[in-house]
Amino acid sequence: MRWARYDHKGKISYGIVDGDTIEEVNGIPWENPEKTGNTVSVNDIKWLPPVIPPTFYAAGLNYAEHVIKTAKRIGKEPNIPEKPDIGYRAVNAMIGHEENVVIPKDAGEQVHYEGEIVAVIGKKAKHLSKEDALSCVFGYTIGNDISERDWQKGDRTMWRGKNTDTFKPMGPWIETDVGDLDKLTTTVKVNGETTIEFPTNNMIFDIPTYISAMTRYLTLYPGDVIWMGAEGASPNMKAGDVCEIEITNIGVLRNTFVAEE
Amino acid sequence: MRWARYDHKGKISYGIVDGDTIEEVNGIPWENPEKTGNTVSVNDIKWLPPVIPPTFYAAGLNYAEHVIKTAKRIGKEPNIPEKPDIGYRAVNAMIGHEENVVIPKDAGEQVHYEGEIVAVIGKKAKHLSKEDALSCVFGYTIGNDISERDWQKGDRTMWRGKNTDTFKPMGPWIETDVGDLDKLTTTVKVNGETTIEFPTNNMIFDIPTYISAMTRYLTLYPGDVIWMGAEGASPNMKAGDVCEIEITNIGVLRNTFVAEE
Repeated sequence: MRWARYDHKGKISYGIVDGDTIEEVNGIPWENPEKTGNTVSVNDIKWLPPVIPPTFYAAGLNYAEHVIKTAKRIGKEPNIPEKPDIGYRAVNAMIGHEENVVIPKDAGEQVHYEGEIVAVIGKKAKHLSKEDALSCVFGYTIGNDISERDWQKGDRTMWRGKNTDTFKPMGPWIETDVGDLDKLTTTVKVNGETTIEFPTNNMIFDIPTYISAMTRYLTLYPGDVIWMGAEGASPNMKAGDVCEIEITNIGVLRNTFVAEE
Repeated sequence: MRWARYDHKGKISYGIVDGDTIEEVNGIPWENPEKTGNTVSVNDIKWLPPVIPPTFYAAGLNYAEHVIKTAKRIGKEPNIPEKPDIGYRAVNAMIGHEENVVIPKDAGEQVHYEGEIVAVIGKKAKHLSKEDALSCVFGYTIGNDISERDWQKGDRTMWRGKNTDTFKPMGPWIETDVGDLDKLTTTVKVNGETTIEFPTNNMIFDIPTYISAMTRYLTLYPGDVIWMGAEGASPNMKAGDVCEIEITNIGVLRNTFVAEE
């Protein structure tokens, strides 16, 4: 089932997506919402991030080739993570499917995409074993962890390198039935041309490993999201470019880059 | 005016604190809430963090002596920040005034307090000049940025070093009338003995400088909090210790450390 969050004529709702139609519900997906019977065309809505998380987690470096290429780009030795230390991103930066990514006037040339699978938490969880870890996951969506590499390299934190407004597209919806994670493929296209394709689950530390490690020390809450990192490197994105991230059985997250006015 | 958020017999409300009495309101402080006329004694409530922020910002290193002592502790050269690069903390870790800080079983000896003034945002804000920066601040509260230094030093991120559950006490309330920030003093006591006292505003980068720099790239939203960092170093805190952080014209944030069961 695909759960979207959207704005229709100024009203923000969740709904169930079926082809080009969304059936509105009252409430939020992980709290047994009621169907209202109202339907709307996907052409008549604005897509919103499918959830605004209480805490926005991100694995960051979690695919081997990406670690090596990122290290090379910033002139450091590759440092493959030895344990699943989770990181964070910021809610201010979130936008939905089809919203524009705004490149700040003073950004450098290296504005990059990172196409990631995102686990959406549906149940409060602490002290989960690896075996039970996925029991707290409601479904999956797609994230684009956009990064300005000069700022990422030069600043003391990743505040503007990763968390500038509009730098965190997420969507288009939450899919509850992705099937076998090992059978998913992530494909990124820029202006219709495939720039990278990789097995989504080819992570250094997989989702159960992260959730089990995290919940030793922290409580996960419904609506929390965990962005699982991306493989490879990105070309430099510029105003006018359209970035599409597709993950098997989830869908396509599409965003256009524009210049700050 | 002092705005508290509290739990009274299972109901979560905001209210205005006057001495030992809280007058309940309907709504949230920065949206012109209505007084209900109901009052409750502060002895009959559980204090909650005065806001759950959409984004939880933290300056981290923002007082010179703290930077030098922190560097020495982790065996690195002191690295005084050259610009106001904001950091982040996580909502899962928040607790209120008088709640217990739980030290995990496997924590090392260096569990430390950091007593900080916290700016609470009351208006959506972007592109603020330094002169206008404080116009988006609703009021101030107190934060204790508890840190486990071995994890802070050894992990790739600050996830458990800073964001273990209960490691972010905040409160007791939001004070809207602190007066001149240059006249405030932060005093930390452990088991009744003063361990440090410093001018609250003796920051490397002050609040207007941070807000102006941040809002060049990001939008601040009502309810966001900015923890401004702490001076000096902390003794090692252990189960049974009571930590009190007092800031002039705001109040006292008190929390007891306990061992994980």
